[in-house]
Amino acid sequence: MPATTRVTVWNEYRHEKENEQVGAIYPDGIQAAIASSFEGLGEFTVRTAALDEPECGLSDDVLDATDVLFWWGHRAHGEVPDQIAQKVKLRVLQGMGLIVLHSAHLSKPFRGLMGTTCQLKWREADDREILWVSRPGHPILAGIDDHFILDQVEMYGEHFDIPEPDETILISSFTGGEVFRSGCTWRRGAGKVFYFRPGHETFPIYFDPTIRNILVNAARWAAPTGTMAIACPRKDKGWLDQS
Amino acid sequence: MPATTRVTVWNEYRHEKENEQVGAIYPDGIQAAIASSFEGLGEFTVRTAALDEPECGLSDDVLDATDVLFWWGHRAHGEVPDQIAQKVKLRVLQGMGLIVLHSAHLSKPFRGLMGTTCQLKWREADDREILWVSRPGHPILAGIDDHFILDQVEMYGEHFDIPEPDETILISSFTGGEVFRSGCTWRRGAGKVFYFRPGHETFPIYFDPTIRNILVNAARWAAPTGTMAIACPRKDKGWLDQS
Amino acid sequence: MPATTRVTVWNEYRHEKENEQVGAIYPDGIQAAIASSFEGLGEFTVRTAALDEPECGLSDDVLDATDVLFWWGHRAHGEVPDQIAQKVKLRVLQGMGLIVLHSAHLSKPFRGLMGTTCQLKWREADDREILWVSRPGHPILAGIDDHFILDQVEMYGEHFDIPEPDETILISSFTGGEVFRSGCTWRRGAGKVFYFRPGHETFPIYFDPTIRNILVNAARWAAPTGTMAIACPRKDKGWLDQS
Amino acid sequence: MPATTRVTVWNEYRHEKENEQVGAIYPDGIQAAIASSFEGLGEFTVRTAALDEPECGLSDDVLDATDVLFWWGHRAHGEVPDQIAQKVKLRVLQGMGLIVLHSAHLSKPFRGLMGTTCQLKWREADDREILWVSRPGHPILAGIDDHFILDQVEMYGEHFDIPEPDETILISSFTGGEVFRSGCTWRRGAGKVFYFRPGHETFPIYFDPTIRNILVNAARWAAPTGTMAIACPRKDKGWLDQS
Repeated sequence: MPATTRVTVWNEYRHEKENEQVGAIYPDGIQAAIASSFEGLGEFTVRTAALDEPECGLSDDVLDATDVLFWWGHRAHGEVPDQIAQKVKLRVLQGMGLIVLHSAHLSKPFRGLMGTTCQLKWREADDREILWVSRPGHPILAGIDDHFILDQVEMYGEHFDIPEPDETILISSFTGGEVFRSGCTWRRGAGKVFYFRPGHETFPIYFDPTIRNILVNAARWAAPTGTMAIACPRKDKGWLDQS
Repeated sequence: MPATTRVTVWNEYRHEKENEQVGAIYPDGIQAAIASSFEGLGEFTVRTAALDEPECGLSDDVLDATDVLFWWGHRAHGEVPDQIAQKVKLRVLQGMGLIVLHSAHLSKPFRGLMGTTCQLKWREADDREILWVSRPGHPILAGIDDHFILDQVEMYGEHFDIPEPDETILISSFTGGEVFRSGCTWRRGAGKVFYFRPGHETFPIYFDPTIRNILVNAARWAAPTGTMAIACPRKDKGWLDQS
Repeated sequence: MPATTRVTVWNEYRHEKENEQVGAIYPDGIQAAIASSFEGLGEFTVRTAALDEPECGLSDDVLDATDVLFWWGHRAHGEVPDQIAQKVKLRVLQGMGLIVLHSAHLSKPFRGLMGTTCQLKWREADDREILWVSRPGHPILAGIDDHFILDQVEMYGEHFDIPEPDETILISSFTGGEVFRSGCTWRRGAGKVFYFRPGHETFPIYFDPTIRNILVNAARWAAPTGTMAIACPRKDKGWLDQS
Repeated sequence: MPATTRVTVWNEYRHEKENEQVGAIYPDGIQAAIASSFEGLGEFTVRTAALDEPECGLSDDVLDATDVLFWWGHRAHGEVPDQIAQKVKLRVLQGMGLIVLHSAHLSKPFRGLMGTTCQLKWREADDREILWVSRPGHPILAGIDDHFILDQVEMYGEHFDIPEPDETILISSFTGGEVFRSGCTWRRGAGKVFYFRPGHETFPIYFDPTIRNILVNAARWAAPTGTMAIACPRKDKGWLDQS
């Protein structure tokens, strides 16, 4: 096991540069806000990566040195090359943790791992969201009581077209009366996946202390345990090329 | 397979006789209201049973002739003898379907099959409940669009202490902002279990056409397929006595 | 619901034409052998389709008229166009049943729905396979006792890189001491998926009465219930194009 | 979180005192053999408990100071008082890990948590068992390759009447051709449960280094994360008394 958990925060990083309102909230990008959640925690080393960097910031060297990958995307899912998305997916099957944030429900790595459309209902509004704990004692929720509230959010509503989660740990209600499975976990191959709903670009949600606590908990939970595993023992027969 | 699906509707049947308000809503008992949902459907034969009948109305003869059992209880869970509850549980493991309604979340057969406390939050109020479909195309939801609304209900809220459902098919929100997994399925042994939240005794919910449609769908879904199965081949070694 | 369950049996149909030994066992193709399992059962209408037909035999008209699709492939998974594989996957999410046979564990539709590599160990040999029932009473196993035996098979062994099945209904052992989850079910969107291991092209397994019984049971189990469902209500927003 | 993980190894401890052959293999009891697996590992503090001690060795003080409980029983499941079994079950729902060994599949705490009969097939013989890894990278299997072998074991065979496991991590084959899900995990409430098949009293299996490695891994995996959780927030309403 590495001395520290190596976190890479990937962000599309377009809204912040093109939209003044978003840029005012996240002047260094959403990735920097998320990365700052780990400041002062010696058990982590954190780097960031963005769509417009070479190889989307996700070279083999970077992925090989990543234990947990955070993913935020919205407008440009289609600009992530299939080859990069496929590499990310295979790393998850080998044991890398993946934390999928908000609108990344439609990202290529997440949809590739789920096998479903991952579509949902949505409404841009100023809904109040109450997130209820549906699995007390889950490590991702350490420090959370039985619920918490976000005052201003974009609404996401069921039906959320995902495979039945291994664990549904948070369920939201919105001002409009909609509901959503806002915290869901799956194991795929040797890797763990956590989908976490909050995080619209027009709200400063990644500066909220409760959210930041959950992000850190999620990195601890998703970190590979023991040595990285090969999902299938036939690597010599080229299985990595076949998927 | 039997020519028809044999449904038994079990009800505690106390509130209706002791509380004038409840008696006015369900003059012949909740069991009669539920049973009337199947009227005119030749594929079913329906009988009712109640706590104060001999053997709680659940003699071996009755259980042996039951494909799907509905269970409504609230105040008198403790008065159901352990032996009866155990018999019901074993019949489920052998293939009988079980539909658990509303406050029967604390009934002995349900808690025995789940292995958890099955506790939840609740508030007697006049909340409006919106039930959202979280698994479109599920047979229990045939004829239901993406949501439906109940105008006056008792609130049930998460955390609901159940094992992760095989399928979460309905999620509710309430006026108070609470959420609840209102439709959940599990397979235990050869039998199917469906928990369905609506149904407080002070509201005429079992006369609501949408609810009645779901009750009928649930009976179709929970009916044993093929011959009744023995959950374990070692019956001759006395496994029935051991559980 | 359609008056009959409409089954389409898709086969790669190459081995049978190119290999004399296989051609002797399946002179009309594996698809014909499978289709003949349904002969005399009025509840089904059956057609076949093959890789080398126009649109792989899977035009929109054919898929729109298919309730359950059987899929057998081995050598030419890569020749199925991505667009066809994607269409099949989306039909499953909308409610079509999919029965994935033997070496089709690496087919595009199955891997797309699972999100994992679906790789496994294998050895071409004359192993004896014992298939043990791990979920008695499951409708796919109607008529099966607690196990059955195939005298000559290709070995498949764990680790099988699949998401945890909703239900593991058959587990095999082989002469060599290997084990394999030979019968697994998943629900994806509104559709049901069944993976069934037996069926190497060099053995007449699809003429075995026990296997044929299971194929018919599987078609009954996988058939959509009620009306075909749209996995996501936002079709008007073009979700079909996004997946 | 406690400075160390506090392990309690519970054993029926009857065979060893009454049967010379068993006593020769486990002179200080199976509990001592298991406890010795943790020797020299500073992250654990270990104690043992046995059926014939006061309160079965499981007073409130002991349970309150236990993070992970190992359970071995065989002949005297019925002598464990219901009240003790219930206390153990509730501690699991609150977050205590439970490792259930071999013939403890019929123990009261395990059957209470599963809700099924937990019956299986068995044969006392000298079978060779091959345990295949069906979930590479799982923390309980750290240090294990794709399989390992036990030369002399009692056979356990499917059907094993359990709820579908959250994770099936080991599947065995036996000389007789039988198969068994030998390593299974479930989450119940805030607690984790691991069933691990090996361990008949007439074989020195708990001195096998591979088995001991897995026992230690299992204790690490099952330890509560963060603070102990209350499975349900309504403790003040007496939910502990109701289950």
